[in-house]
Amino acid sequence: MKIAVLGGDGYCGWATALYLSKQGHTVAIVDNFIRRQWDHELGAQTLTPIAPLNERLKVWKKITGHSIDSYVGDITDYEFLCSVIKRFEPEAVIHFAEQRSAPYSMIDQRHAVFTQTNNVVGTLNLLFALREFQPDCHLIKLGTMGEYGTPNIDIEEGYITIEHNGRKDVLPFPKQPGSFYHLSKVHDSHNMMFACKAWNLRATDLNQGVVYGTVTDEVSLDDALINRFDYDEVFGTVLNRFCVEAVIGHPLTVYGTGGQQRGFLDIRDTVRCLELACLNPAAPGECRVYNQFTERFSILELAEIVQKASAKIGLHVEITHLPDPRVEAQEHYYNAKHSKLVDLGLQPHLLSDALLDSLLKVAVKYKDRVDESLIMPRVNWRQTHNDHSHTPQNGNGNGDKPARAAQPAVAGSQRRTR
Amino acid sequence: MKIAVLGGDGYCGWATALYLSKQGHTVAIVDNFIRRQWDHELGAQTLTPIAPLNERLKVWKKITGHSIDSYVGDITDYEFLCSVIKRFEPEAVIHFAEQRSAPYSMIDQRHAVFTQTNNVVGTLNLLFALREFQPDCHLIKLGTMGEYGTPNIDIEEGYITIEHNGRKDVLPFPKQPGSFYHLSKVHDSHNMMFACKAWNLRATDLNQGVVYGTVTDEVSLDDALINRFDYDEVFGTVLNRFCVEAVIGHPLTVYGTGGQQRGFLDIRDTVRCLELACLNPAAPGECRVYNQFTERFSILELAEIVQKASAKIGLHVEITHLPDPRVEAQEHYYNAKHSKLVDLGLQPHLLSDALLDSLLKVAVKYKDRVDESLIMPRVNWRQTHNDHSHTPQNGNGNGDKPARAAQPAVAGSQRRTR
Repeated sequence: MKIAVLGGDGYCGWATALYLSKQGHTVAIVDNFIRRQWDHELGAQTLTPIAPLNERLKVWKKITGHSIDSYVGDITDYEFLCSVIKRFEPEAVIHFAEQRSAPYSMIDQRHAVFTQTNNVVGTLNLLFALREFQPDCHLIKLGTMGEYGTPNIDIEEGYITIEHNGRKDVLPFPKQPGSFYHLSKVHDSHNMMFACKAWNLRATDLNQGVVYGTVTDEVSLDDALINRFDYDEVFGTVLNRFCVEAVIGHPLTVYGTGGQQRGFLDIRDTVRCLELACLNPAAPGECRVYNQFTERFSILELAEIVQKASAKIGLHVEITHLPDPRVEAQEHYYNAKHSKLVDLGLQPHLLSDALLDSLLKVAVKYKDRVDESLIMPRVNWRQTHNDHSHTPQNGNGNGDKPARAAQPAVAGSQRRTR
Repeated sequence: MKIAVLGGDGYCGWATALYLSKQGHTVAIVDNFIRRQWDHELGAQTLTPIAPLNERLKVWKKITGHSIDSYVGDITDYEFLCSVIKRFEPEAVIHFAEQRSAPYSMIDQRHAVFTQTNNVVGTLNLLFALREFQPDCHLIKLGTMGEYGTPNIDIEEGYITIEHNGRKDVLPFPKQPGSFYHLSKVHDSHNMMFACKAWNLRATDLNQGVVYGTVTDEVSLDDALINRFDYDEVFGTVLNRFCVEAVIGHPLTVYGTGGQQRGFLDIRDTVRCLELACLNPAAPGECRVYNQFTERFSILELAEIVQKASAKIGLHVEITHLPDPRVEAQEHYYNAKHSKLVDLGLQPHLLSDALLDSLLKVAVKYKDRVDESLIMPRVNWRQTHNDHSHTPQNGNGNGDKPARAAQPAVAGSQRRTR
């Protein structure tokens, strides 16, 4: 199967591209490397030293014999995107190519506008390009469980049957996203639903939970294939961050009470979910939604799990409660359905001691690369800055840290002149 | 009360600015005149010959003694917008400053991207600017009844109580918008709900129905104050278009069966609704939603009403059914609530023979200005074009019409370099 992975140089994208290539699919990666630029902007870097994409792909070819083509460019550039679709003629497009950090979108006005413009325009362009050049191609788009927020009712997979005043309809599940990033995904979802209906496109919207882990069978084959492992407050997902905190002796940073419940999944399940979606395409005109996570934890539960696992390898770890920088309910009902991918054959890797051991081992191995000043939350939902020259406060007051300019690092076609 | 009217040079904005000024409010108009640019782009013009804004305002001052300040610029330019908010210090901002045509958004990829970028960024900028410089200001934003689509249940005003699996919550009403324009309004609504919650802003989202009429007490005072009257397929609202068709002997152009039901209101009610919203501000942190229309008609019913009114003034009018260029249900359940503005004191001007007489009279008066080639629908939802150089087909095949380049006429800060 010919599969294009947009954002294939990123965290989930890289693991997915290799996994699909290994299964024998013909994979192409489309990326503009903006994720690497954001690291420079924030003065952050992945815990694991990742190789440049061309090196990654050379090593992959050498080890497995599988070629992965790369197309370097920005999907908000419509002509570039069309040229890729025309040349590669994908049967499925997996769309990871969005700004995916909630804190990044909340830094200030420019980061909010950048996030929504980048994500919405990229997805709009993709819908138009598929309609024009590859209308039968299956679009698989990464959404987020954060689109739903935390309603006081069960969360269904994308749609809900509503009975109201004696009448009934199946309608899109009401969304209550909690950041400009999460909002951008809701905007995308609405645009996709409309395009499928108007143009008979086929799409799957994967509302993914919080991903953890870094090791998949494929990226383990060689050091040059190693995946990202983000632990900074802006791009680090919570479990990865906790593991890094544990090995450097930093208290686990729980925001508020830690009663916030979320859906989680192992990155090895992410890649498998993507293949399942490819192998079982949506019908023409269908915009289906799957909730893509395997287990539910509260943040405090996760911290306690990491604390216990750390104790087993001799690390004494404390848990600290910080004022919650986000606008979110700290205690709430949460019951989100997630059976559709299991019905397609997903066999979840549940969070086990073994996985935590391996995560902690990665953290130990690269401990010297940890920059502790990146951990404490500096982006505050309520105090989002408007001053463009603002530099997020340095959590540890360490004056010799590189300045972190709050400037969206945008590609040429996205830069908004002022 | 100090009220800024963004988009105050447009159809609803102009009528609203004058009405509020007449009531003694201190009004400022913010506009970049892009609405006039779109006329040039489409080779269209308003039936009524409108004066430039500076002339309009001079005459208004001369006749009434009331000054209206104007700020010329684009609200997608954040620094411009901030400077206006800082200087004028509004107690209420009425936000009409969006691309408001569904067909315009469906011309091609560029018009879709322009519409969503323009509308979403403008509203995001406004939320940030208010938060920073005028956090107690009441934001009154024009949405559209088209955000809801046509669900098979009653449409509530913005929120719905959902009982599901034995639990209950009040959630945003599910949206099923039917064009990239309508989608942009849904995106705005979600962004506003979040900003009110996160930053304690106060907002009213007015989901307006289809507006008809052109005459208000204020614009009638002088020919230089006359309002727009659009009848072209891109910007003309349906009742205005039917009246123009009637007086030039063109069959009334009903799309499909005409069973599509919509909410409608007289422009004299639009201006009154805006004042009611200003006088009764939302509470801090509240994002309330009002459905702003007064009567429901099907498109065919409207055509028949115009046919009858025309007969009374001696015009024989036919009704024609065209293939529906839109993606919409032609027969459907429709029951949308609209009691909240009435509760605040709105006394509707219902569609009467008198109003239709006056509308038809305006159309007769300016009959010589009608360009018949602008009437037939050329923008097709299913055949939205990707070719940037595409010129929408000329309905009457008249070779000497000016070419209609499908290029978004964007202000400097919005232009996306390719």
